[in-house]
Amino acid sequence: MRVRKRKGAEDYLENHPQYVILNPEDAKGKWHLVFGNDNPIHIEVGSGKGAFITGMALQNPNINYIGIDIQVSVLSYALDKVIESQAPNVRLLRVDGSSLTNYFEDGEVALMYLNFSDPWPKTRHEKRRLTYKTFLETYQQILPEHGEIHFKTDNRGLFEYSLASFSQYGMTLKQVWLDLHASNYESNVMTEYEQKFSEKGQVIYRVEAQF
Amino acid sequence: MRVRKRKGAEDYLENHPQYVILNPEDAKGKWHLVFGNDNPIHIEVGSGKGAFITGMALQNPNINYIGIDIQVSVLSYALDKVIESQAPNVRLLRVDGSSLTNYFEDGEVALMYLNFSDPWPKTRHEKRRLTYKTFLETYQQILPEHGEIHFKTDNRGLFEYSLASFSQYGMTLKQVWLDLHASNYESNVMTEYEQKFSEKGQVIYRVEAQF
Repeated sequence: MRVRKRKGAEDYLENHPQYVILNPEDAKGKWHLVFGNDNPIHIEVGSGKGAFITGMALQNPNINYIGIDIQVSVLSYALDKVIESQAPNVRLLRVDGSSLTNYFEDGEVALMYLNFSDPWPKTRHEKRRLTYKTFLETYQQILPEHGEIHFKTDNRGLFEYSLASFSQYGMTLKQVWLDLHASNYESNVMTEYEQKFSEKGQVIYRVEAQF
Repeated sequence: MRVRKRKGAEDYLENHPQYVILNPEDAKGKWHLVFGNDNPIHIEVGSGKGAFITGMALQNPNINYIGIDIQVSVLSYALDKVIESQAPNVRLLRVDGSSLTNYFEDGEVALMYLNFSDPWPKTRHEKRRLTYKTFLETYQQILPEHGEIHFKTDNRGLFEYSLASFSQYGMTLKQVWLDLHASNYESNVMTEYEQKFSEKGQVIYRVEAQF
């Protein structure tokens, strides 16, 4: 997600260390200390403006959530939502999706979400897609055995690619939705992007894939 | 595919033994004799009115095609097309999809097609869907190691189900199309049903899955 640069975003993040993890290397293997409990940890890689991760945190108080994004301005909007929600079980992390093994111990993440990831439609950019095999290797390492990725997108090309990529990596597709909003899937928490594009009649795809 | 009963259909089929295999048990392991060559054999289970199998036969003269359907009247319409096409590399077979191992030796079928199969939408009818695991077991037996199923449908529920069923059976999704007619897939041969429903704006799904 690209947003306009927000003035003072960096200071804003740094002034909220109770929500934004500033020295994430130190948290590796110790996230239960960050949250103050042993609840399972779910992460969203590419958490954008934070509606999903905050909504999930409010819906599921016994799960800890970490929203991860590399862009300062985007993360600052997510911080707005986290502060407003007053949810005690959500944190934000400004790191790159390819470097997750620096911040999470093997198996430390119980479940992971990818929502409306950048489609990188050009073939030469395949390696940048968050469902490319090198990313899957990273996710597999920080998830438990048979860990799951829950992925949704409105981008047809990215979804076609990702189903094949998951499968060819050896993952199993547990369930597939080809029109999420027309289905009876009830616990869906929408992202900002999802709200906007589904209102325009765009189909939303979803898959639960398991290592 | 359900069609109105056609008068004289049974006799019509029996009078064309050069196209309709009347004693298929005898052909098991000997299909190369039926076709008079050693070309690879591709089958379509649920071949309906035969537009696909006949079109494929004309497009690919070095492949032998067998259209399989259990309904006499449906098969008689396929026979019309086969006769009209004068393609030497296509045959019709009136047997049930669950009994294929009676008519094909292990690995005798090089590739298999499923097109617009009956969706059997009710959960209690899951076992009748041609992509249910017991059918996959049958297909795996008559296909070679790493054999492929190429499946297309306009039915969202059946496609969602089938992607998960293939994957959970241990098959790999080689490629997925979520809007076949909007893609750059050029060698598509349409079925009667596909022609009709795609004209109404219905999306066509396709997958190539490999054992």
